[in-house]
Amino acid sequence: MSKVKVAAFSVSLDGFGAGAHQDVENPLGIRGEELHTWMFERTSNVENTGVDDDFVKKSMENIGAWIMGRNMFGPVRGPWPDAEWKGWWGQKPPYHVPVFVLTHHPRESFEMEGGTTFHFVTGGIEAALEKSEKAANGKDIRIGGGVSTIHQFLQAGCIDEMHLAFAPIFLGSGEHLFSGIDIPAMGFHQIEKFNGERATHIILKK
Amino acid sequence: MSKVKVAAFSVSLDGFGAGAHQDVENPLGIRGEELHTWMFERTSNVENTGVDDDFVKKSMENIGAWIMGRNMFGPVRGPWPDAEWKGWWGQKPPYHVPVFVLTHHPRESFEMEGGTTFHFVTGGIEAALEKSEKAANGKDIRIGGGVSTIHQFLQAGCIDEMHLAFAPIFLGSGEHLFSGIDIPAMGFHQIEKFNGERATHIILKK
Repeated sequence: MSKVKVAAFSVSLDGFGAGAHQDVENPLGIRGEELHTWMFERTSNVENTGVDDDFVKKSMENIGAWIMGRNMFGPVRGPWPDAEWKGWWGQKPPYHVPVFVLTHHPRESFEMEGGTTFHFVTGGIEAALEKSEKAANGKDIRIGGGVSTIHQFLQAGCIDEMHLAFAPIFLGSGEHLFSGIDIPAMGFHQIEKFNGERATHIILKK
Repeated sequence: MSKVKVAAFSVSLDGFGAGAHQDVENPLGIRGEELHTWMFERTSNVENTGVDDDFVKKSMENIGAWIMGRNMFGPVRGPWPDAEWKGWWGQKPPYHVPVFVLTHHPRESFEMEGGTTFHFVTGGIEAALEKSEKAANGKDIRIGGGVSTIHQFLQAGCIDEMHLAFAPIFLGSGEHLFSGIDIPAMGFHQIEKFNGERATHIILKK
Protein backbone atom coordinates (compact mmCIF):
# COMPACT_ATOMS: atom_id res chain seq x y z
CA MET A 1 0.00 0.00 0.00
CA SER A 2 1.10 3.53 -0.65
CA LYS A 3 2.66 5.39 2.25
CA VAL A 4 2.10 9.13 2.40
CA LYS A 5 5.29 10.84 3.39
CA VAL A 6 7.20 14.04 3.73
CA ALA A 7 10.84 13.55 2.79
CA ALA A 8 13.91 15.75 2.78
CA PHE A 9 11.84 18.69 3.92
CA SER A 10 14.26 21.36 5.10
CA VAL A 11 13.65 23.57 8.09
CA SER A 12 15.85 26.10 9.81
CA LEU A 13 16.92 25.59 13.40
CA ASP A 14 14.25 28.03 14.46
CA GLY A 15 11.67 25.94 12.63
CA PHE A 16 11.00 27.82 9.42
CA GLY A 17 10.32 25.85 6.24
CA ALA A 18 10.61 28.92 4.03
CA GLY A 19 11.77 32.48 4.43
CA ALA A 20 9.54 35.56 4.41
CA HIS A 21 8.41 37.35 1.22
CA GLN A 22 8.21 34.53 -1.28
CA ASP A 23 8.04 35.80 -4.85
CA VAL A 24 9.31 35.02 -8.33
CA GLU A 25 12.81 36.10 -7.39
CA ASN A 26 12.81 34.28 -4.06
CA PRO A 27 10.79 31.10 -4.53
CA LEU A 28 11.60 30.06 -0.99
CA GLY A 29 11.45 33.56 0.48
CA ILE A 30 14.33 35.58 1.80
CA ARG A 31 17.30 33.31 2.55
CA GLY A 32 15.07 30.31 1.92
CA GLU A 33 17.58 28.90 -0.57
CA GLU A 34 20.02 28.40 2.29
CA LEU A 35 17.65 25.82 3.72
CA HIS A 36 18.64 23.53 0.87
CA THR A 37 22.38 24.05 0.84
CA TRP A 38 22.79 20.63 2.43
CA MET A 39 21.23 19.05 -0.68
CA PHE A 40 23.15 20.86 -3.33
CA GLU A 41 26.61 21.28 -1.86
CA ARG A 42 27.74 17.77 -2.48
CA THR A 43 30.33 16.14 -0.29
CA SER A 44 33.89 16.42 -1.50
CA ASN A 45 34.48 12.80 -2.42
CA VAL A 46 33.83 11.99 -6.06
CA GLU A 47 31.15 9.39 -5.46
CA ASN A 48 28.92 11.87 -3.64
CA THR A 49 28.42 9.57 -0.76
CA GLY A 50 27.67 10.70 2.72
CA VAL A 51 24.76 10.92 5.13
CA ASP A 52 23.22 13.95 3.43
CA ASP A 53 23.61 12.53 -0.06
CA ASP A 54 22.09 9.24 1.02
CA PHE A 55 19.06 11.07 2.38
CA VAL A 56 18.63 12.95 -0.88
CA LYS A 57 18.72 9.70 -2.83
CA LYS A 58 16.42 7.93 -0.43
CA SER A 59 13.89 10.75 -0.59
CA MET A 60 13.38 10.05 -4.31
CA GLU A 61 13.04 6.27 -4.03
CA ASN A 62 9.75 4.46 -4.60
CA ILE A 63 7.77 7.66 -5.14
CA GLY A 64 4.74 7.14 -7.39
CA ALA A 65 3.20 10.60 -7.12
CA TRP A 66 3.78 14.01 -5.56
CA ILE A 67 1.36 16.46 -4.00
CA MET A 68 2.33 20.09 -3.58
CA GLY A 69 0.70 23.39 -2.70
CA ARG A 70 0.25 26.00 -5.33
CA ASN A 71 2.92 28.27 -3.87
CA MET A 72 5.46 25.51 -4.22
CA PHE A 73 4.47 25.20 -7.86
CA GLY A 74 4.86 28.88 -8.61
CA PRO A 75 4.34 32.53 -7.73
CA VAL A 76 1.08 33.02 -9.68
CA ARG A 77 -1.86 33.79 -7.35
CA GLY A 78 -5.59 33.84 -8.08
CA PRO A 79 -7.10 32.43 -11.31
CA TRP A 80 -4.51 31.23 -13.82
CA PRO A 81 -4.18 34.03 -16.41
CA ASP A 82 -2.82 31.58 -18.99
CA ALA A 83 -0.86 28.32 -19.21
CA GLU A 84 2.50 30.03 -19.38
CA TRP A 85 3.81 29.22 -15.88
CA LYS A 86 5.06 25.64 -15.89
CA GLY A 87 6.82 25.45 -12.52
CA TRP A 88 10.21 26.54 -11.21
CA TRP A 89 12.09 23.61 -12.65
CA GLY A 90 12.56 24.20 -16.39
CA GLN A 91 11.59 21.79 -19.17
CA LYS A 92 12.58 18.67 -17.26
CA PRO A 93 11.37 18.85 -13.66
CA PRO A 94 12.98 16.50 -11.13
CA TYR A 95 9.78 14.58 -10.35
CA HIS A 96 9.39 12.08 -13.21
CA VAL A 97 5.93 11.03 -11.97
CA PRO A 98 2.49 12.67 -11.76
CA VAL A 99 2.45 15.79 -9.57
CA PHE A 100 -0.83 16.99 -8.08
CA VAL A 101 -0.96 20.72 -7.38
CA LEU A 102 -3.53 21.96 -4.85
CA THR A 103 -5.31 25.06 -6.13
CA HIS A 104 -8.69 26.77 -5.92
CA HIS A 105 -8.56 27.53 -9.64
CA PRO A 106 -8.99 24.87 -12.35
CA ARG A 107 -6.31 24.38 -14.95
CA GLU A 108 -5.61 21.74 -17.60
CA SER A 109 -3.01 19.08 -16.88
CA PHE A 110 0.19 19.23 -18.91
CA GLU A 111 3.19 17.01 -19.43
CA MET A 112 6.84 17.95 -19.21
CA GLU A 113 9.97 16.14 -20.28
CA GLY A 114 11.22 13.26 -18.19
CA GLY A 115 7.85 11.84 -17.20
CA THR A 116 6.51 14.64 -15.00
CA THR A 117 2.85 15.52 -15.53
CA PHE A 118 1.30 18.34 -13.56
CA HIS A 119 -2.34 17.96 -12.55
CA PHE A 120 -4.36 20.65 -10.82
CA VAL A 121 -6.72 19.59 -8.05
CA THR A 122 -9.48 21.90 -6.87
CA GLY A 123 -11.16 19.41 -4.53
CA GLY A 124 -8.80 19.84 -1.57
CA ILE A 125 -6.43 17.38 0.05
CA GLU A 126 -8.84 14.41 0.04
CA ALA A 127 -9.29 14.67 -3.72
CA ALA A 128 -5.53 15.06 -4.17
CA LEU A 129 -4.87 11.96 -2.07
CA GLU A 130 -7.43 9.91 -3.97
CA LYS A 131 -6.02 10.89 -7.36
CA SER A 132 -2.42 10.44 -6.29
CA GLU A 133 -3.12 7.01 -4.84
CA LYS A 134 -4.44 5.86 -8.18
CA ALA A 135 -1.51 7.41 -9.98
CA ALA A 136 1.07 6.01 -7.57
CA ASN A 137 -0.09 2.47 -8.18
CA GLY A 138 1.19 1.09 -4.89
CA LYS A 139 4.27 3.26 -4.66
CA ASP A 140 4.54 6.05 -2.08
CA ILE A 141 3.03 9.51 -2.24
CA ARG A 142 5.32 12.34 -1.34
CA ILE A 143 3.93 15.55 0.08
CA GLY A 144 6.34 18.16 -1.23
CA GLY A 145 5.25 21.21 0.70
CA GLY A 146 5.16 23.97 1.54
CA VAL A 147 4.45 24.39 5.20
CA SER A 148 0.72 25.07 4.88
CA THR A 149 0.21 22.02 2.67
CA ILE A 150 2.08 19.83 5.16
CA HIS A 151 -0.03 21.29 7.98
CA GLN A 152 -3.24 20.41 6.17
CA PHE A 153 -2.18 16.80 5.65
CA LEU A 154 -0.84 16.51 9.21
CA GLN A 155 -4.03 17.87 10.71
CA ALA A 156 -6.05 15.42 8.64
CA GLY A 157 -3.90 12.60 10.06
CA CYS A 158 -2.82 11.54 6.56
CA ILE A 159 0.94 11.54 6.88
CA ASP A 160 2.62 8.25 7.78
CA GLU A 161 6.22 9.35 7.95
CA MET A 162 8.25 12.54 7.90
CA HIS A 163 11.91 13.11 7.21
CA LEU A 164 12.93 16.61 8.21
CA ALA A 165 16.37 18.06 7.56
CA PHE A 166 17.40 20.73 10.04
CA ALA A 167 19.77 23.14 8.32
CA PRO A 168 22.14 25.01 10.64
CA ILE A 169 20.72 28.45 9.94
CA PHE A 170 18.36 30.82 11.72
CA LEU A 171 15.78 32.55 9.56
CA GLY A 172 13.92 34.54 12.21
CA SER A 173 10.78 34.86 10.09
CA GLY A 174 8.89 33.02 7.39
CA GLU A 175 6.67 29.94 7.30
CA HIS A 176 6.96 28.12 10.62
CA LEU A 177 6.53 24.35 10.52
CA PHE A 178 5.92 23.80 14.23
CA SER A 179 3.56 26.67 15.00
CA GLY A 180 -0.05 25.74 15.48
CA ILE A 181 0.55 22.01 15.32
CA ASP A 182 1.45 19.52 18.01
CA ILE A 183 3.48 16.75 16.39
CA PRO A 184 3.49 14.35 19.37
CA ALA A 185 -0.29 14.80 19.77
CA MET A 186 -0.61 13.61 16.17
CA GLY A 187 0.93 10.32 17.15
CA PHE A 188 4.49 10.76 15.90
CA HIS A 189 6.49 9.13 18.64
CA GLN A 190 9.24 7.18 16.96
CA ILE A 191 12.11 9.54 16.40
CA GLU A 192 15.39 8.71 14.73
CA LYS A 193 18.23 11.20 14.42
CA PHE A 194 21.14 11.17 12.00
CA ASN A 195 23.94 13.69 11.90
CA GLY A 196 24.67 14.63 8.33
CA GLU A 197 27.62 16.60 7.05
CA ARG A 198 25.51 19.70 6.54
CA ALA A 199 22.16 19.00 8.18
CA THR A 200 20.64 17.04 11.04
CA HIS A 201 18.12 14.50 9.81
CA ILE A 202 15.08 13.51 11.82
CA ILE A 203 12.73 10.71 10.92
CA LEU A 204 9.31 10.76 12.56
CA LYS A 205 7.06 7.75 12.48
CA LYS A 206 3.76 6.89 14.10
CA MET B 1 35.51 42.32 30.46
CA SER B 2 32.63 40.06 31.36
CA LYS B 3 30.75 38.41 28.53
CA VAL B 4 27.08 37.75 29.05
CA LYS B 5 26.19 34.36 27.73
CA VAL B 6 23.68 31.59 27.48
CA ALA B 7 25.38 28.21 27.58
CA ALA B 8 24.22 24.62 27.30
CA PHE B 9 20.63 25.78 27.04
CA SER B 10 18.59 22.84 25.81
CA VAL B 11 15.74 23.15 23.36
CA SER B 12 13.67 20.52 21.60
CA LEU B 13 13.76 20.23 17.84
CA ASP B 14 10.48 22.09 17.69
CA GLY B 15 12.05 24.91 19.69
CA PHE B 16 10.73 24.47 23.21
CA GLY B 17 13.03 25.28 26.14
CA ALA B 18 10.68 23.69 28.68
CA GLY B 19 7.60 21.52 28.57
CA ALA B 20 4.09 22.60 29.50
CA HIS B 21 2.73 22.67 33.09
CA GLN B 22 5.82 23.38 35.14
CA ASP B 23 5.32 22.61 38.82
CA VAL B 24 7.12 21.18 41.80
CA GLU B 25 6.93 17.68 40.37
CA ASN B 26 7.95 18.73 36.86
CA PRO B 27 10.44 21.59 37.26
CA LEU B 28 10.91 21.67 33.49
CA GLY B 29 7.32 20.90 32.61
CA ILE B 30 5.97 17.75 31.06
CA ARG B 31 8.79 15.80 29.39
CA GLY B 32 11.08 18.76 30.01
CA GLU B 33 13.64 16.51 31.71
CA GLU B 34 14.25 14.80 28.39
CA LEU B 35 15.68 18.04 27.09
CA HIS B 36 18.68 17.43 29.32
CA THR B 37 19.28 13.76 28.69
CA TRP B 38 22.28 14.71 26.56
CA MET B 39 23.94 16.23 29.63
CA PHE B 40 23.34 13.46 32.08
CA GLU B 41 23.65 10.33 30.02
CA ARG B 42 27.39 10.30 29.87
CA THR B 43 29.20 8.68 27.00
CA SER B 44 30.21 5.08 27.58
CA ASN B 45 33.96 5.58 27.79
CA VAL B 46 35.26 5.94 31.33
CA GLU B 47 36.81 9.35 30.88
CA ASN B 48 33.48 10.91 29.92
CA THR B 49 34.92 12.53 26.86
CA GLY B 50 32.93 13.39 23.80
CA VAL B 51 31.41 16.38 22.09
CA ASP B 52 28.47 16.61 24.49
CA ASP B 53 30.61 16.18 27.60
CA ASP B 54 33.03 18.83 26.37
CA PHE B 55 30.16 21.26 25.94
CA VAL B 56 28.94 20.57 29.47
CA LYS B 57 32.41 21.25 30.85
CA LYS B 58 32.90 24.34 28.73
CA SER B 59 29.58 25.78 29.82
CA MET B 60 30.84 25.92 33.42
CA GLU B 61 34.22 27.51 32.67
CA ASN B 62 35.09 31.07 33.62
CA ILE B 63 31.62 31.84 35.01
CA GLY B 64 31.68 34.51 37.71
CA ALA B 65 27.95 34.88 38.28
CA TRP B 66 24.62 33.47 37.17
CA ILE B 67 21.31 35.16 36.51
CA MET B 68 18.10 33.16 36.43
CA GLY B 69 14.39 33.74 36.39
CA ARG B 70 12.34 32.96 39.41
CA ASN B 71 10.69 29.94 37.79
CA MET B 72 14.07 28.40 37.22
CA PHE B 73 14.82 28.87 40.90
CA GLY B 74 11.64 27.25 42.09
CA PRO B 75 7.90 26.68 41.88
CA VAL B 76 6.91 29.31 44.48
CA ARG B 77 4.85 32.14 42.93
CA GLY B 78 3.87 35.53 44.40
CA PRO B 79 5.41 36.91 47.62
CA TRP B 80 7.80 34.50 49.36
CA PRO B 81 5.81 32.94 52.21
CA ASP B 82 9.02 32.07 54.07
CA ALA B 83 12.67 31.27 53.41
CA GLU B 84 12.08 27.55 53.13
CA TRP B 85 12.52 27.06 49.38
CA LYS B 86 16.22 27.03 48.61
CA GLY B 87 16.22 25.94 44.97
CA TRP B 88 15.92 22.62 43.19
CA TRP B 89 19.51 21.56 43.78
CA GLY B 90 19.85 20.44 47.38
CA GLN B 91 22.39 21.69 49.92
CA LYS B 92 25.21 22.05 47.39
CA PRO B 93 23.94 23.65 44.18
CA PRO B 94 26.09 23.25 41.06
CA TYR B 95 26.79 26.98 40.65
CA HIS B 96 29.63 27.71 43.14
CA VAL B 97 29.33 31.48 42.47
CA PRO B 98 26.75 34.19 43.23
CA VAL B 99 23.38 33.55 41.56
CA PHE B 100 21.00 36.45 40.98
CA VAL B 101 17.34 35.48 40.87
CA LEU B 102 14.92 37.85 39.12
CA THR B 103 11.76 38.35 41.16
CA HIS B 104 9.16 41.00 41.90
CA HIS B 105 9.23 40.08 45.58
CA PRO B 106 12.13 40.95 47.88
CA ARG B 107 13.89 38.22 49.79
CA GLU B 108 17.10 38.03 51.82
CA SER B 109 20.21 36.55 50.22
CA PHE B 110 21.41 33.22 51.57
CA GLU B 111 24.46 31.06 51.13
CA MET B 112 24.61 27.37 50.32
CA GLU B 113 27.42 24.86 50.48
CA GLY B 114 30.07 24.93 47.78
CA GLY B 115 30.20 28.67 47.27
CA THR B 116 26.74 29.33 45.84
CA THR B 117 24.96 32.41 47.22
CA PHE B 118 21.47 33.23 46.05
CA HIS B 119 20.57 36.92 45.75
CA PHE B 120 17.12 38.19 44.87
CA VAL B 121 16.88 41.14 42.50
CA THR B 122 13.67 43.16 42.24
CA GLY B 123 15.03 45.88 39.94
CA GLY B 124 14.72 43.95 36.67
CA ILE B 125 17.37 42.75 34.26
CA GLU B 126 19.44 45.96 34.33
CA ALA B 127 19.84 45.75 38.09
CA ALA B 128 20.66 42.06 37.83
CA LEU B 129 23.31 42.74 35.21
CA GLU B 130 24.88 45.51 37.26
CA LYS B 131 25.06 43.38 40.39
CA SER B 132 26.30 40.32 38.56
CA GLU B 133 29.01 42.29 36.79
CA LYS B 134 30.38 43.41 40.14
CA ALA B 135 30.15 39.89 41.52
CA ALA B 136 31.71 38.28 38.45
CA ASN B 137 34.81 40.40 38.76
CA GLY B 138 35.81 40.14 35.11
CA LYS B 139 34.61 36.58 34.59
CA ASP B 140 31.57 35.81 32.46
CA ILE B 141 27.93 36.08 33.42
CA ARG B 142 25.76 33.16 32.51
CA ILE B 143 22.06 33.65 31.89
CA GLY B 144 20.60 30.37 33.06
CA GLY B 145 17.02 30.67 31.86
CA GLY B 146 14.24 30.01 31.47
CA VAL B 147 12.91 31.07 28.13
CA SER B 148 11.25 34.29 29.30
CA THR B 149 14.41 35.43 31.09
CA ILE B 150 16.50 34.74 27.98
CA HIS B 151 13.96 36.65 25.88
CA GLN B 152 14.23 39.68 28.16
CA PHE B 153 18.01 39.76 27.91
CA LEU B 154 17.96 39.13 24.16
CA GLN B 155 15.46 41.90 23.55
CA ALA B 156 17.57 44.28 25.58
CA GLY B 157 20.54 43.38 23.36
CA CYS B 158 22.56 42.21 26.36
CA ILE B 159 23.58 38.72 25.31
CA ASP B 160 26.95 38.33 23.61
CA GLU B 161 26.92 34.63 22.89
CA MET B 162 24.54 31.69 23.00
CA HIS B 163 25.20 27.99 23.02
CA LEU B 164 22.02 26.05 22.36
CA ALA B 165 21.79 22.28 22.50
CA PHE B 166 19.09 20.82 20.29
CA ALA B 167 17.87 17.60 21.82
CA PRO B 168 16.35 15.10 19.38
CA ILE B 169 12.85 15.22 20.83
CA PHE B 170 9.60 16.95 19.92
CA LEU B 171 7.68 18.49 22.79
CA GLY B 172 4.76 20.00 20.88
CA SER B 173 3.95 22.50 23.63
CA GLY B 174 5.68 24.47 26.35
CA GLU B 175 7.94 27.52 26.45
CA HIS B 176 9.06 28.32 22.92
CA LEU B 177 12.48 29.91 22.55
CA PHE B 178 12.07 31.20 19.00
CA SER B 179 8.54 32.60 19.15
CA GLY B 180 8.29 36.35 19.26
CA ILE B 181 11.99 36.96 18.76
CA ASP B 182 14.03 37.32 15.59
CA ILE B 183 17.53 36.07 16.33
CA PRO B 184 19.18 37.28 13.10
CA ALA B 185 17.59 40.72 13.53
CA MET B 186 19.33 40.87 16.91
CA GLY B 187 22.66 40.62 15.18
CA PHE B 188 23.52 36.97 15.74
CA HIS B 189 25.06 36.02 12.44
CA GLN B 190 28.02 33.79 13.24
CA ILE B 191 26.76 30.28 13.55
CA GLU B 192 28.80 27.23 14.37
CA LYS B 193 27.35 23.73 14.47
CA PHE B 194 28.72 20.66 16.22
CA ASN B 195 27.19 17.22 16.11
CA GLY B 196 27.26 15.73 19.55
CA GLU B 197 26.52 12.16 20.50
CA ARG B 198 23.10 13.03 21.90
CA ALA B 199 22.45 16.65 20.87
CA THR B 200 23.29 19.11 18.12
CA HIS B 201 25.18 22.11 19.44
CA ILE B 202 24.81 25.56 17.97
CA ILE B 203 26.95 28.54 18.90
CA LEU B 204 25.56 31.96 18.01
CA LYS B 205 27.77 35.01 18.09
CA LYS B 206 27.26 38.60 17.06
